[in-house]
Amino acid sequence: MAATVAAFEVEELRKKLQDASLSESEKKETEEKMSARQKELEQLKSAKKSPGSIANPYSKSLYMRAAIRDVLSGDEGVSLIGETIVVGGWVKTGRTAEKGAFTFLEINDGSCPTSLQVLVKAEIENPDRIKQTGVCVVVEGELKAAPAESKQKTELHVSKMLHVGTCEAAAYPIAKSKLSLEFLREKIHLRVRTNTIAAIQRVRNCLAFATHRFFQESGFQYVHTPIITASDCEGAGEMFQITTMLAAAEEAGKKPPPTEEYIASLKAAASAAGSKVADIKKASKEGSDEDKEKAKQDLKPALDELMAAKKAVEEAEAAAKNVGGLPRTATGGIDYSTDFFGQPVNMTVSGQLQAEIYACAMTSVYTFGPTFRAENSHTSRHLAEFWMIEPEIAFADLFDVMQCAEDYVRYCCVRVLEECMDDLVLLSKMYDKGCIDRVRAVASQPFGRCSYTEAIEILKKAVANGHKFENNEIEWGMDMGSEHERYISEKVFKKPVCCYNYPKAIKAFYMRANEDGKTVASMDVLVPGVGELIGGSQREERYEVLVSRLEELNLDPKVYEWYTDLRKFGTCVHSGFGLGFERLILFCTGMENIRDVIPFPRWPGNARG
Amino acid sequence: MAATVAAFEVEELRKKLQDASLSESEKKETEEKMSARQKELEQLKSAKKSPGSIANPYSKSLYMRAAIRDVLSGDEGVSLIGETIVVGGWVKTGRTAEKGAFTFLEINDGSCPTSLQVLVKAEIENPDRIKQTGVCVVVEGELKAAPAESKQKTELHVSKMLHVGTCEAAAYPIAKSKLSLEFLREKIHLRVRTNTIAAIQRVRNCLAFATHRFFQESGFQYVHTPIITASDCEGAGEMFQITTMLAAAEEAGKKPPPTEEYIASLKAAASAAGSKVADIKKASKEGSDEDKEKAKQDLKPALDELMAAKKAVEEAEAAAKNVGGLPRTATGGIDYSTDFFGQPVNMTVSGQLQAEIYACAMTSVYTFGPTFRAENSHTSRHLAEFWMIEPEIAFADLFDVMQCAEDYVRYCCVRVLEECMDDLVLLSKMYDKGCIDRVRAVASQPFGRCSYTEAIEILKKAVANGHKFENNEIEWGMDMGSEHERYISEKVFKKPVCCYNYPKAIKAFYMRANEDGKTVASMDVLVPGVGELIGGSQREERYEVLVSRLEELNLDPKVYEWYTDLRKFGTCVHSGFGLGFERLILFCTGMENIRDVIPFPRWPGNARG
Repeated sequence: MAATVAAFEVEELRKKLQDASLSESEKKETEEKMSARQKELEQLKSAKKSPGSIANPYSKSLYMRAAIRDVLSGDEGVSLIGETIVVGGWVKTGRTAEKGAFTFLEINDGSCPTSLQVLVKAEIENPDRIKQTGVCVVVEGELKAAPAESKQKTELHVSKMLHVGTCEAAAYPIAKSKLSLEFLREKIHLRVRTNTIAAIQRVRNCLAFATHRFFQESGFQYVHTPIITASDCEGAGEMFQITTMLAAAEEAGKKPPPTEEYIASLKAAASAAGSKVADIKKASKEGSDEDKEKAKQDLKPALDELMAAKKAVEEAEAAAKNVGGLPRTATGGIDYSTDFFGQPVNMTVSGQLQAEIYACAMTSVYTFGPTFRAENSHTSRHLAEFWMIEPEIAFADLFDVMQCAEDYVRYCCVRVLEECMDDLVLLSKMYDKGCIDRVRAVASQPFGRCSYTEAIEILKKAVANGHKFENNEIEWGMDMGSEHERYISEKVFKKPVCCYNYPKAIKAFYMRANEDGKTVASMDVLVPGVGELIGGSQREERYEVLVSRLEELNLDPKVYEWYTDLRKFGTCVHSGFGLGFERLILFCTGMENIRDVIPFPRWPGNARG
Repeated sequence: MAATVAAFEVEELRKKLQDASLSESEKKETEEKMSARQKELEQLKSAKKSPGSIANPYSKSLYMRAAIRDVLSGDEGVSLIGETIVVGGWVKTGRTAEKGAFTFLEINDGSCPTSLQVLVKAEIENPDRIKQTGVCVVVEGELKAAPAESKQKTELHVSKMLHVGTCEAAAYPIAKSKLSLEFLREKIHLRVRTNTIAAIQRVRNCLAFATHRFFQESGFQYVHTPIITASDCEGAGEMFQITTMLAAAEEAGKKPPPTEEYIASLKAAASAAGSKVADIKKASKEGSDEDKEKAKQDLKPALDELMAAKKAVEEAEAAAKNVGGLPRTATGGIDYSTDFFGQPVNMTVSGQLQAEIYACAMTSVYTFGPTFRAENSHTSRHLAEFWMIEPEIAFADLFDVMQCAEDYVRYCCVRVLEECMDDLVLLSKMYDKGCIDRVRAVASQPFGRCSYTEAIEILKKAVANGHKFENNEIEWGMDMGSEHERYISEKVFKKPVCCYNYPKAIKAFYMRANEDGKTVASMDVLVPGVGELIGGSQREERYEVLVSRLEELNLDPKVYEWYTDLRKFGTCVHSGFGLGFERLILFCTGMENIRDVIPFPRWPGNARG
C-alpha cells in the first residue's frame, strides 16, 4: 500500500505541473518532489530481496528490522546470504556450544511458524542472559549459509545485540515445551507465544481476511450491525443484559429500604405537622392579639417542619420503590427509565434482522462481528462470545444462498491451503493427521444437496439395514441430532451437504413457508467432522404470511413492526445464512476445543485477559 | 473468487489424473470433469460483458439478475445494448408518459449511486402499482440506447415483470425526497433506502475493506480482542456492565426481603422444634414403656418439623441477603459469584491491552471491532457504540507508529477517492462542498510533525499576535482544546499533523516516560476539519518503570499483573495507536453528525433498530 499512496502522490504532482500559473521555482520544486517520489515508487515495485526491501516500514526509526517471514520466504534466505540484516523475536530454544563460546538461538517473531537460527558469540552477549525460552532479542548480523548438516539453509551470525528483554526460566509459566491446552487457557496472556496458538492465530487471520475478500469481490457491502440491541432474533438463545444501573445499586442496596411501618410513622408525623400549621393559622385569625402575635412567630418554623416532614415521606416512598438499589415501577418490575437507554437492552445474538434491513436497499450485504449467548454451556463447541458471518442477499432464493454458502466455504479452504500450509502441517502433526486432506476435499469438490425428507429416508434405510444411532427413532418431523447429520455427510455423501426444506415446526418464524404447508425454505450445511457449520433460509417476504406466523407463535407483531415494515414497503425475495466463525476455524485446523481457536475465550465463570 | 475455487479444483483433478491406479472409466470421468471445469474457468476469466458474465452468481436460481453497477460500469451500459438482461431494485422516482401508456422508473439496487432508467408499457404492468417511490421491482427487458436528449446513455425496455413489491405512498414514511437527517434517525430501518445513507454505507464499506487490505498487505495479523472484559483500559471512559442477574431480580425484587424480626421468629420456632426433639429423645430413653412407645411414634414427625424449620431459617437468611433480587455479600456489596462470569464484567472500551499481548508474540497486529462508552454524551461526535482500529507493533518506536498512522490514513483516502468518487460527489453536493479537496489533500502529501512543546510555542505566538481562542491561557502542561488542535492543523500546517511528546500528567499510565522526566512518548494526529483523529503512544516496556507508575497513580499492580507480565518475560519496545472508525468516515464524507455514519447509532436513550 505504500506503493498505492506513492503512485497517487506522483499523479497529483504531475497534474499540478500542468498548472500554467506555477512560478518557475514552484515548478522546479514540484518536479524535484515528483522525481524523488517516482524513484521511491520504483524501488517499492522492484521485487528483488535486499535488506532495504525487506525491512518492515514501521521499524525504520528504531531498528530497520525485517520480519523473519520476509527473510526466509521463497528461498529460505539464500538470496540474502552475505547481507547484514536486523531481526527481532522471542527465543524458542537456546543452547551453548564449544564450552559457552557460542550461543545458538532459535528465534521466532510470529510472522511465520519457522524460526531463524541465530548464532551469538560470548564476547557479544553473555549466554546466560539470552538462552532461556521467552527471551526477546533484536540482533544485527550477517546472514550466512548454514553448515551442510543443518536442517536450515541459512543462519544469522550476530555482530550487535540491539535489545535483550530477559526472561527468568523459573518464573516463566510457559517455559516448558509440552504444555496442555487446558493449562494454556489459564495462562491466557502468554499462550500466543506457543507454536500451536500462534499457528491457529495465523489461520484465523487468513480466514478472516478471506471472508472479507470473498464477499467484497462478490459485490457485497460489509455492514456493522449493532451489538447493543433492544430486539431479539427469536429463538437464537439466552441473552446478556447491558446496564449502567448496577453501580448505583452497589451502594444504594447496602441499606434496607424503609418499612411500611416506618413510612406510616413519617406520614403520621407529617399529618401532625399539618395539624399544627392549621392550628396556628386558626389562632392567627381567631385568637387574642397576643395569640395572633405568637402565631405570627410560630408559623414560619411550623411550615418549615411540615415541608421537611412531607419531603421525608416522599424520599422514603421513593426509597421503598428502590429495592436493593434497583428502582421499581408501580407494578414492582425494574424501572428501566433511568437506565442508559431508558429500556432493557441486550447483547446481540445475531445481526440477521438488521442485515435484512440493509439487504432490502443495498441488495448484497454481510456482517462479520461478535455475537453472544448467555447459555450455561460448558461444552467444547460453545462460547459465550463468538464471531459470526451473516450474508443476506436480495433477489436470491434458497438455492442461490446455498450456492453462496458453498462458494464461500470452499474459497476459505483454498485460501488456507495456499497461505497457511506451514501452519496446517504443524497443527496436523500435533493434533489431527487427517485435517489437511479433509480441508483439501472440501476445497476441491462441489457440495451435495439433499432435502430433509430425503435425509430422513436415508436414515430410516440405515436403521433398517442395522445401523445403530443413539437415537434410533427416525421419523419425519424430528430435529436431527449431530450423529444423524454426521452420518449423512460422512458416510453417505462423504463431503459437505446442503440439507434443505426442514419441517416448519422446528424452525424460526422468519423462514419462508413452502407450498406444501409443512416445510420451510431453510437449509443447513453439514460438514464431515464438524456437523452443522451453517444455517440459513429464504426469508418470509409476504407481509400477511409473516404477521400470521408471528401471531401463531404468540409473538407480538408490534415488537417486530420495523421488521414487518420491510415486507410492507417494497418487499423482495431474499435469503441469507449464518456461519459461526470459530466452527470454521475448528474445521480448518482440526482442533477439538473451540476455546483454543479464539484469542480470549469466554465461558461461564471465565473472562480471563 | 469463483475463479480461485475453480482453478484449485482443476489443479486437484490434474493431480488425480497422474494417479496410475485409476481405472479407465475413472480416468475418463475425471478428464471430463476437468475439461468442463476448465471451460467454466476460462469463461470466468474472460472479461467481456455479456448478460451471463454480469449476472450475479447468487441470483441464478431465481432470476439471473445483474447488479446495476455491473450493467453501467465503464461504459454506462453501451456494450450491452441489444442484450436482454434482468435487474432488480427499488423505485427512486416514477412517472407516466403519453397518458399512461408508459411508466418511466428510476430504479436503484444500492450497488452504486446511479439509478437505471426503466420503461414499462401499460400492457405489461399497471402504472399505479409501480410508480410510487419505494416499490420493489424485478424486470426483464432489452437494454436500448436512450434518446439523444436523455442524461443517461442506456435504458431498459421491459418485456416481463418478474416481481412487484408494492409500496403505498401515503403510508411510506420516507416517500418524500427531502427529509432531514434527524427525521431519518427515527426511521432507522428505512433510512438506508435514501441516497445519502446508502452513499455513506458504500464509503464506510470501502474504508473498512481498505483498513483490512492496508494492514494485511503490511504483514499485520487481525486479532479479535474480547468485547466482554473484566479489565479496564484505564481512563478510557465509563463502562457498560454485562450481567444475567437482572432477569432474576425482576421477579425476586417484587416481594420485600424478610425482616430481622421475622427471621428471629423463624429461629425461635426452630429452637422450639429442637427442644421438642430433645424431649422426645429423652422420653424414649428414660420414660415409662408407654412413654417410650409414644416417643417412638412422635420422633419422626418431630424430626421432620425440625428439618423444615431449619430450612425455613436458611432460606429466609438467604432471601434477606438477596435485597431487591440482587444477592449481597456479607459486607453488603452485590454478590457476583452467581453472575454468569462469577465477577463483574464490562463491555470493552479498548482492545489495546489485549492487542499488546498479541504484538508481544506476533509482532504486528491490529484490531477492528466495536468498543463502548457509557458516557451521558449527546454531542454530534460521540456514540455509545462505535468501531475502533487499534494497531500494535513490536520493535517500533513512537516515530515508527506515527509513520504507520500516516500511511494508513493516506491509503484509506486514496481508496475512497478511487472507489467511491460517485458517492463523494453526491455527498459533497448535498452537504460539504470542500470535502473532496480535503480528502485529496490528505491523500497526496506527507503529514506534518510537531512536538507538544513546539505546538504550545506556536499557540503562544498566535495569542501574542492577536489571535483570539476561547481559551487564551496558553501554557505548557495544558490539555489542548479542539480549537487549538484545529488552529495548528488548519492554519499553521494546513494539513494533518502528528503532534507528539505530551506532558506525562495528562496522559495514560502505559505511555513510555521520556528522558526529560516531564513528557511521555505519545502522539495525536490532528486533522483539518476533524481535530483529533488518532491517539497513540510508545508503550512503557520497562517493568520497574511501569509498576512504579501504576503505584504513583494508585492503581493496583495486582489487577494489571497480566499486563506487567509482558514486561517481565521477554519485553520489547512496542507502540500502537487507536482510530475511531466513524471519525474517519466523518472526515471522508464531510458529514457533521456521527449518528449518520453508523448503520444503527446508539446514544443515551436510543437503541433503535
